[in-house]
Amino acid sequence: MSIEKLMQPFTVGIDLENARMKNPQKSLVRKASDMKGHYKNAAALDKIITGGNPLHYEVQETPVPEKYGELMYCISILQPGLVGDECFMTKGHYHTIPETAEIYLCLKGEGFMMMKTSDGKCDYQKMSRGHMVYVPPYWAHRSINTGKEELVSFCVYQGDAGHNYGDIETEGFPKRVFLRGGKIVVE
Amino acid sequence: MSIEKLMQPFTVGIDLENARMKNPQKSLVRKASDMKGHYKNAAALDKIITGGNPLHYEVQETPVPEKYGELMYCISILQPGLVGDECFMTKGHYHTIPETAEIYLCLKGEGFMMMKTSDGKCDYQKMSRGHMVYVPPYWAHRSINTGKEELVSFCVYQGDAGHNYGDIETEGFPKRVFLRGGKIVVE
Repeated sequence: MSIEKLMQPFTVGIDLENARMKNPQKSLVRKASDMKGHYKNAAALDKIITGGNPLHYEVQETPVPEKYGELMYCISILQPGLVGDECFMTKGHYHTIPETAEIYLCLKGEGFMMMKTSDGKCDYQKMSRGHMVYVPPYWAHRSINTGKEELVSFCVYQGDAGHNYGDIETEGFPKRVFLRGGKIVVE
Repeated sequence: MSIEKLMQPFTVGIDLENARMKNPQKSLVRKASDMKGHYKNAAALDKIITGGNPLHYEVQETPVPEKYGELMYCISILQPGLVGDECFMTKGHYHTIPETAEIYLCLKGEGFMMMKTSDGKCDYQKMSRGHMVYVPPYWAHRSINTGKEELVSFCVYQGDAGHNYGDIETEGFPKRVFLRGGKIVVE
């Protein structure tokens, strides 16, 4: 290891009141059209896509090398809304190295972290400002927005973790979250 | 890997306004007497110790297994004050696996993250609410409180990182931080 090549320390601004990263270097954007196949009511999603295909969620990053020893961090911003009566959510993923955990510190909004293991165990944790959800090794995870404002979290995971979207897309999550008659229903 | 033994997801409360962990399972406490050998003015530290040996800093944790794949997280609370004219600080450490990074998200107070590498490079970053300092792999690091209230950070690092206090205690940090004539001086 050449000491000459060491990374210099740096600071990133996190606006803890407004739940945003200041000057993110990179932003991953998912629109409604990126969510095909994820909601129960495909026709309702198509209607949202043809109606303007709005932003669904965004991940603000200031990237570091994706390797062992580094820590990836980001701000995840999930819009509020419904596809039919199903609450807006992220795609969800396992890590490419499945035995790596992730920490989500919720800064704003209301929702759930929905999680499952490859053998079908399912768990979900409530998210609101100040809730830090520990997604242990081996659990696929997706955020679900059950509120009327953005659901925003500060996330940290190992640099070598990687994202595996394919397996959970094939398996699906065992539970979905709906807003029916003004009540949140998990089924 | 037995799927039966997988850890269940859980939630920890972080009070983002008051900069505290809610119901921490474990708390590491360092008193003035634990800081012997770290400050320039040993006699001034002795006076603080004989004058009541007050709390110097505290680390609130809800521990997870210390192994690859897990993420350790804590709330670090450093008291304000002076040893002679030198600002209160933590011991500082390298990680036992030196190529592992650490993230400090400052929630309260004013100070510096002081860092050095084993070949003597030195860097420091300002800390105040919303500053997220990235301590890259291979950098020893200590927090220094330059303000009048507690310096509090939410910290995350790899489960297998470990703490190596010995090497930096032998080497020392190249720079110290003082309050002189109402001004912060780094030298």
